[in-house]
Order: sequence, then structure tokens, then C-alpha cells
Amino acid sequence: MRELFHDQLDAMFADLAGICRQVETAVGLATQALMTGDAAIAEQVISGDIEIDRAREAVEETAFSVLSLQQPVAGDLRTVVSALRMVSELERMGDLSVHVAKIARLRVPELAVPVEAQPTVSRMGEVAEDMVRRVSQIITGRDVEAAIALGRDDEVMDQLRRKSFTELLSDDWAGGVEAAVDIALLGRYYERIADHAVSVANRIVFVVTGHNPSALPLE
Amino acid sequence: MRELFHDQLDAMFADLAGICRQVETAVGLATQALMTGDAAIAEQVISGDIEIDRAREAVEETAFSVLSLQQPVAGDLRTVVSALRMVSELERMGDLSVHVAKIARLRVPELAVPVEAQPTVSRMGEVAEDMVRRVSQIITGRDVEAAIALGRDDEVMDQLRRKSFTELLSDDWAGGVEAAVDIALLGRYYERIADHAVSVANRIVFVVTGHNPSALPLE
Repeated sequence: MRELFHDQLDAMFADLAGICRQVETAVGLATQALMTGDAAIAEQVISGDIEIDRAREAVEETAFSVLSLQQPVAGDLRTVVSALRMVSELERMGDLSVHVAKIARLRVPELAVPVEAQPTVSRMGEVAEDMVRRVSQIITGRDVEAAIALGRDDEVMDQLRRKSFTELLSDDWAGGVEAAVDIALLGRYYERIADHAVSVANRIVFVVTGHNPSALPLE
Repeated sequence: MRELFHDQLDAMFADLAGICRQVETAVGLATQALMTGDAAIAEQVISGDIEIDRAREAVEETAFSVLSLQQPVAGDLRTVVSALRMVSELERMGDLSVHVAKIARLRVPELAVPVEAQPTVSRMGEVAEDMVRRVSQIITGRDVEAAIALGRDDEVMDQLRRKSFTELLSDDWAGGVEAAVDIALLGRYYERIADHAVSVANRIVFVVTGHNPSALPLE
């Protein structure tokens, strides 16, 4: 029974890592659609989101089945509930990639992001994608150190968002109101992807150590 | 045992309704801070959020205790897991109210929202607050009809958000880039509060009927 339980948990975490890789692809393609104004790539992200939703449902069903049949308690129970939370967050990250792709699609054949804002916005996209990539490795390896490091690096996204606001609100801003509004929302979407990435990583810390990262001693 | 279980569930749902009322107050005060530029009210929302966080933790502990000690299966299991999800969403709605309050605080002693945008933004705030108010009644009364009606009314928020974009992006917009960015983000925060309200209401439908609202026949 215990062995079956742990096999089921392993399978569930493998599925979570797989969904995370789907999200990584979605984030990368959404940014590509945004920076190139390629409607087909934007459509691919938007229509592909249903697969992340389905994968989420499959993990949820597995989790319910494990809870019902194995009746885990204590740490095992918290692990299964954490998996349910992680899959919700991963699905949200997919939704946020769709929001990015929809802004790209809305402005085709123009680019949503004017030249002067492209470095900061594309950097946000890269940072978000990189964070999601690291999360799938963190899930696969149950890597507590990498998870704690990810939490620290979240500051990079915050800095980019502040930089982006400074650009938009400077007297030199020539991009107009529409682009400023798009970029403010894009910044919000990337920031939320990063927040969820950190949150999923923190849940891995909790699953492995039984403690939240804020309760762990810093090196 | 069954009776104890149902008493615990009732207590948990009473706590959820209580948190929902705290969120309703937060949304209302955040909008008030925004429309009046009152820094003290904004601070009240920002510093008061910790109480929503604490109340969430208490519900989570109760839910884990119920899962561990009562080992519910089938519908009872899904009810407890739904409660865990509802409390996460209510906490997020509190966080979103804090985001609204922070935009208000950032612009004090000015108003973040220029006169021409005030009707639409304050209406968004009213709609969000009203939706949260209805959710606490839906939780208390396990009111499936009111929950389904709430889902339909979500369209009102979408319309307001579109109206707000039309205002910001019109040639007549005299509010400047900063206010446009603030209003776009405010619209996003209110929209997310409304989305979460609908989601919590849908979870009540699921808890009561065992089905998601999308699977139920419409009258």
C-alpha cells in the first residue's frame, strides 16, 4: 500500500513537471508572438491552452483518487494537497501566457510593444520563461536549494517591472497611451507568472522539508 | 462521527463566509480610498490584509484536521478540498483589494483616477463589492440559484472593463499615460476579484450539487 502510494505520488509529480514544461513552451511562444507580431504563434498559445487544462484535470483526478483510496495523513496528506495547489498554479500560468498572446494578436500586424520598450519587455519574457524552466527541474528533482534560489531571483522580475514603469512614465515616452496600457498589463502578466513559479517552487520546499521557505534558515 | 464531520463542515463554511465579509469590506474601503484619495483608508486595507491571511490559515488547518481525522471520501472529500480552494481564492481577492489600495496610496494627495474616468472605475468597484457581498450570502445559504445568477452577471464587469478601455484609448482622453496605466491595472484587479467571486460561487454549486455549473441545465 505504501509502495503503491509512493508510486502514485511519483507519477503525479512527473505529470506536474510535464505540465510545467507545457507552460514553459506557452510562455516562450507567447513572448515570441509578442515580439514578432506573428498571429499564428499567438493562436498556437491560445488554442493550445486546452491541453494544459486537460492535463490539470487528469492530475486532479489522480489526486482525488489517491486521497480517497489511500487516505494519507500528516505529511503525505499535505503532499497530495500541495500537488493540487501546484497544478492550479501551473494552469494559471498557462492562462497568463494566453493573456500575453492575446495582446500580441490584438495588435497584429503591428507590434504591441514599441521599439523603445522592447528590451525590457522581452527581458521580462525571458526571465519568466527561465523561471518556469527551473520550476520543472525543481519539481522533477525535488530540488530544495534550487527552489530557494528561485525565490531570491524573483527580485529580478520586480526590478524589470519597475524599469518598465519608469520607461512608460518618462517624459520621453513616445509610444502613446495604448502601448503604455498594453505594456503595463504585459508586465502584470509576466510578474504573476513569476509569482506563481516562486509559489510552486516553495510548495516543493514544503513537500520535501515539511516547512515553508520563510521558516528555513538562510545560508 | 458523521455528525461531528458535518458540524466541522458547517463551522468551516461559516468561517469562509466570515472571510468573504472581510474581503467585501476590503474591496469597499479600497474603492473608497481610490475615489477620495484618503491615505488612511488605503492604509487600513493594506495593513488589515494580514487578518484575512490569518483567517485563511485557520480554515486550512481545520480542513487538514478534518481530512486527517475524518478521512472523508467521495462528495465529502470534494467538499473539503473545495473549501481549501475557496479560502485560497478569498485570500487572493483580499490581495487584489490591497493592490487597488496601493494605487490609491501611491497618488495621494492626488486622485489616481481623473474625473472623466471616475464613473466607470467607481462602478467597477461597486460591482466587485456587490459580487463579493452576494458570494458571502451564497456560501452561508449554499444558494445554488444565486450562485448561477452571479456567474451570469459577471458579464457586467466585462462590459465595464471594455468601456474603460474605450475611454482610455479615445482621442479625447486627457488623463495622460500615468492615469491610463493606473486605470488599466485597476480594471484588471477588479476583473480578477469578480472572476474569483464567480469561481467561489461555482464551487458552492459543485459542493451542493456535485456538478460544475457549466454541466447544469440553464433555465
